[in-house]
Amino acid sequence: MGRKVILDCDPGHDDAFAMMLAVQHLEVLGITTIGGNCTLENVTKNALKVLEVLGRTDIPVFAGHSCPMTVPLVTAPQFHGETGLDGPVLPEPAVKAQEKHAVDFIVETVMDTDDVTLIATGPLTNIAAAINREPRIVERVTELSIMGGSVTYGNWTPTAEFNIFVDPEAAYRVFNSGLHIKMSGLNLTRQCCLTGEHVKKFREIGTKAANLAADLTDFFIGATVKSAELTGANMHDACAVAWLIDPSLVKSAQMHIDIELKGDLTRGMTVCDYRHLRGVEPEIDLHREPQMAFRGEKPNAEAGLELDFPGFMELLYRTLTNYK
Amino acid sequence: MGRKVILDCDPGHDDAFAMMLAVQHLEVLGITTIGGNCTLENVTKNALKVLEVLGRTDIPVFAGHSCPMTVPLVTAPQFHGETGLDGPVLPEPAVKAQEKHAVDFIVETVMDTDDVTLIATGPLTNIAAAINREPRIVERVTELSIMGGSVTYGNWTPTAEFNIFVDPEAAYRVFNSGLHIKMSGLNLTRQCCLTGEHVKKFREIGTKAANLAADLTDFFIGATVKSAELTGANMHDACAVAWLIDPSLVKSAQMHIDIELKGDLTRGMTVCDYRHLRGVEPEIDLHREPQMAFRGEKPNAEAGLELDFPGFMELLYRTLTNYK
Amino acid sequence: MGRKVILDCDPGHDDAFAMMLAVQHLEVLGITTIGGNCTLENVTKNALKVLEVLGRTDIPVFAGHSCPMTVPLVTAPQFHGETGLDGPVLPEPAVKAQEKHAVDFIVETVMDTDDVTLIATGPLTNIAAAINREPRIVERVTELSIMGGSVTYGNWTPTAEFNIFVDPEAAYRVFNSGLHIKMSGLNLTRQCCLTGEHVKKFREIGTKAANLAADLTDFFIGATVKSAELTGANMHDACAVAWLIDPSLVKSAQMHIDIELKGDLTRGMTVCDYRHLRGVEPEIDLHREPQMAFRGEKPNAEAGLELDFPGFMELLYRTLTNYK
Amino acid sequence: MGRKVILDCDPGHDDAFAMMLAVQHLEVLGITTIGGNCTLENVTKNALKVLEVLGRTDIPVFAGHSCPMTVPLVTAPQFHGETGLDGPVLPEPAVKAQEKHAVDFIVETVMDTDDVTLIATGPLTNIAAAINREPRIVERVTELSIMGGSVTYGNWTPTAEFNIFVDPEAAYRVFNSGLHIKMSGLNLTRQCCLTGEHVKKFREIGTKAANLAADLTDFFIGATVKSAELTGANMHDACAVAWLIDPSLVKSAQMHIDIELKGDLTRGMTVCDYRHLRGVEPEIDLHREPQMAFRGEKPNAEAGLELDFPGFMELLYRTLTNYK
Repeated sequence: MGRKVILDCDPGHDDAFAMMLAVQHLEVLGITTIGGNCTLENVTKNALKVLEVLGRTDIPVFAGHSCPMTVPLVTAPQFHGETGLDGPVLPEPAVKAQEKHAVDFIVETVMDTDDVTLIATGPLTNIAAAINREPRIVERVTELSIMGGSVTYGNWTPTAEFNIFVDPEAAYRVFNSGLHIKMSGLNLTRQCCLTGEHVKKFREIGTKAANLAADLTDFFIGATVKSAELTGANMHDACAVAWLIDPSLVKSAQMHIDIELKGDLTRGMTVCDYRHLRGVEPEIDLHREPQMAFRGEKPNAEAGLELDFPGFMELLYRTLTNYK
Repeated sequence: MGRKVILDCDPGHDDAFAMMLAVQHLEVLGITTIGGNCTLENVTKNALKVLEVLGRTDIPVFAGHSCPMTVPLVTAPQFHGETGLDGPVLPEPAVKAQEKHAVDFIVETVMDTDDVTLIATGPLTNIAAAINREPRIVERVTELSIMGGSVTYGNWTPTAEFNIFVDPEAAYRVFNSGLHIKMSGLNLTRQCCLTGEHVKKFREIGTKAANLAADLTDFFIGATVKSAELTGANMHDACAVAWLIDPSLVKSAQMHIDIELKGDLTRGMTVCDYRHLRGVEPEIDLHREPQMAFRGEKPNAEAGLELDFPGFMELLYRTLTNYK
Repeated sequence: MGRKVILDCDPGHDDAFAMMLAVQHLEVLGITTIGGNCTLENVTKNALKVLEVLGRTDIPVFAGHSCPMTVPLVTAPQFHGETGLDGPVLPEPAVKAQEKHAVDFIVETVMDTDDVTLIATGPLTNIAAAINREPRIVERVTELSIMGGSVTYGNWTPTAEFNIFVDPEAAYRVFNSGLHIKMSGLNLTRQCCLTGEHVKKFREIGTKAANLAADLTDFFIGATVKSAELTGANMHDACAVAWLIDPSLVKSAQMHIDIELKGDLTRGMTVCDYRHLRGVEPEIDLHREPQMAFRGEKPNAEAGLELDFPGFMELLYRTLTNYK
Repeated sequence: MGRKVILDCDPGHDDAFAMMLAVQHLEVLGITTIGGNCTLENVTKNALKVLEVLGRTDIPVFAGHSCPMTVPLVTAPQFHGETGLDGPVLPEPAVKAQEKHAVDFIVETVMDTDDVTLIATGPLTNIAAAINREPRIVERVTELSIMGGSVTYGNWTPTAEFNIFVDPEAAYRVFNSGLHIKMSGLNLTRQCCLTGEHVKKFREIGTKAANLAADLTDFFIGATVKSAELTGANMHDACAVAWLIDPSLVKSAQMHIDIELKGDLTRGMTVCDYRHLRGVEPEIDLHREPQMAFRGEKPNAEAGLELDFPGFMELLYRTLTNYK
């Protein structure tokens, strides 16, 4: 069994893939939900539905915050449809979410259990609220693996990625908290792009989970092609989980990352200082020792830079096959 | 003879290389100076000194603004020394700068002469002031080729390049003016990196200009290694000129570029929207048609992305040889 | 018995006066604490100590957030001493704070009880967290009376008052939540200034509560004279309570108030739009009908403008006398 | 004859009153114009027209910048009409503006002439450009008297006055330049409010200048009543001139004033630090010595606080009578 995790998410098509990987390979203590890709009500229901398909209704689901800490909620129906998980037709979930608030579940679990890793694939509102409610969790959490931000460019704006853009204040709190952070940013997750070929393979696998994967990917490709004019669908959130399951899938580098709150053009940007990693070339060179000393603040995060996409797909195929 | 240009600069070691290329290959109507790498007094004197070495005291020099439009001046002595052109020992210039203000020279020349191209290798203060003084120059200038900004990362801060950082308000004015802009940003100019091998070759060429180039590069490498821990010296400013002399040296793409004025972490950043140029890969793919429609505002600039460095060096060697 | 309230505070000398007024004249369902004037640990202990002096250990105390939502905590030892309540020597409290978190107490009480009014005399972190945790409390709370902000000038900076400055993001959330807000800003609370004469009167009253009031005021005058060079001590927080006890003590006006988060010079400013209230005179004229239509957004708050200070003192003296 | 001044303005109804006062009581070396209330073309024409009515075509007019330093121009047709001086019907001016640019006139005059005072009743673009072009003028100018900003509230936004709002970057440059500044802000100029009674008196005076004053005020009252719902028209700009003619007309205080460039709600605000001037009362007390030491930066400006309006009107009536 893999490490103990709590998965904080807003399913969301790619969140569903994060769930598929997590519940099979990691010890998922609970799933917490956060308004983001869709409303809190819908993403909570979606989490329950996916768990039912995976046959894992033993994993408790806790609803968290319905909106960002400071500003109103923005959602992404153009990518995930009105339900937040358009595409597959899934029955209403038989199991309900727990009464306990997601933030309480996070705080209590981390304070009571050693070696808990947090995964966050939506806006960081719940994580920030948990830190604010009980600052001691920072010292107790093993690490936080997030999908969010970018070392390079944004999607929602030229500089900001959606999850961070939705609640920049929460992201600021988290990145300045002292937590050890693994960041699967857009620069990494764009390397994880599924197309019709992959859908075909899912259908060949034929398990319930694989069929769900196929239906989700089908819809997600269509929406992405239409809304972002890309050629396939990026399974962003799955990267943050896959990195924990098999660290060899991601090449990364230590750097200081902070969140811009004030810019007119850059609000919600993950400002990554990787000046110590550049040589004379414009891009990061992973195959060489850091050339410079850190020029600004000390690293507070490990940013994913290169994804072994074939390795990722192999893990995913294997996982879908294993769901009987 | 190449196209008619005015070169606005703050020499500066790499500005000197920009001058070497420009005065031989382009019709330089005048050189205007701007406080930046060093004080206005010094950079003006440096421009005159370089012209004397090149035997081109026929080209008039006009001093411009001594400080940014809004905020105090920041200089870069750690890279260019106290004089702004430390390294070579050059006599006091025999020729003086013109009485006319740089901005007046720019405005009058552009209004009186067709097809003038502007080159700016320092902070954009003079260019912005010229636009503010006579907005009609925007329609008359052929284009503006700048060294400044970056498509990716910064040097002075994680996000901002020095020339733009020094006067962000001027850069904002220029990028929002309607001028056609070619941007040689850090992402391009880091590909132009000179080391000891190049210095050796300059000394073998042996002309006065080549010896100046050798002395400048020697000092600049030392300062850069010490201050930025890079392995060589980037001849940033020369790229903005080389691109005009031989457009085949630079691969580029159209994009919208704006200047962040307000960010705590991003003030002075050239915010480049190249979302239309990305595929599933994280980086810009120059060998493929734009995949997406423009997602934000229409392009207002052409950003240099790939430098043919061997071709650049060939041009530079040839140029230095030609100075008798 | 007065209306049902929860008092959220960070005692704090003037918070202690707010408590004295509230527990005698209003139905205080609970006191919640927030890190602000001093650390959460200290302000919680201080709240318990004050209740013991007042003989009201029946009122439960709930500790809340120890730091602001987004940024690190700033405290004010120069005004309140190291304990947050320097001056009087009080025994360690015999009663402990409740286990329940302040935010949970606020949310549960408001959802279970009709007609609850909130009073907040510290940073608005707990109130914002309560709204974020259960947005439906906005509709159920009767109103929120705060000490914080200013219609005119600031104290911590030229434009920002301390309570808002400490957690501007929380204040932004609260002022944009839809809650009905009564704001006792600096412009009002500076009219509530206690000097040696008042201390003398407290000592003449001679009850335990009056002696506590005297000791607190003595210290607070000294600290204020030393740190702010004022001639007396402003009992800021007491105004927010007095206004609820006897609305005739405060003249007020409806206006739109928002929180500036981004300014270099104005972060934490309560931006009050009272353009509809001005005549040809520079100041607000309370004795005349609004002259203009609202020029910006509709009012979301009622700002206190004139305090009946003699009336306030009469209420305070009577209150202190009544504590046996 | 009064002191030597250059009047930089954007007439504009209240600018016309500033001109009437200035050209009779001060030695006006020239009038420079700036795009603001209306386009540069119109305000320049308006300045020439007013001088013709006053019989003072000997005073040269110089056109300056047509737009702010950094951002696009905003004008105020709702207060000044389409021409910028709607109301009176005036012939096309017989005299033309000078060829020289306003900024050159300011720089050359100040460098060549001792004891020049600048008056600015529009956006501060020309003044900032003059400082940028020749920083030594700062030491040579006696002082700068502006209409702009406010010690208290704004008009264009809740916090910003129009002249500063139009070009905040220029204002930032000027207030941080070291110039001695007299600020006639909204808080002062709202005390200068003309109504129908004053128009009647102007008509009784009956000179050409008085008739112009009547026509201007008539229109300006109507526009102000309609657009701002005030009861009269504030002759803002005239205050900055009257203060120089008779300093006893204005009570003032020294304070530090800076310009907010970044705020979402406060961009263009003149942030006035007058914490040293407050007592226990909420408002500035002019009749008492400063109570506190300066709490922030040292004063860089003298802010007008109380206008002797009857004295101002007496000066104005006398002036209009004196124009034959």
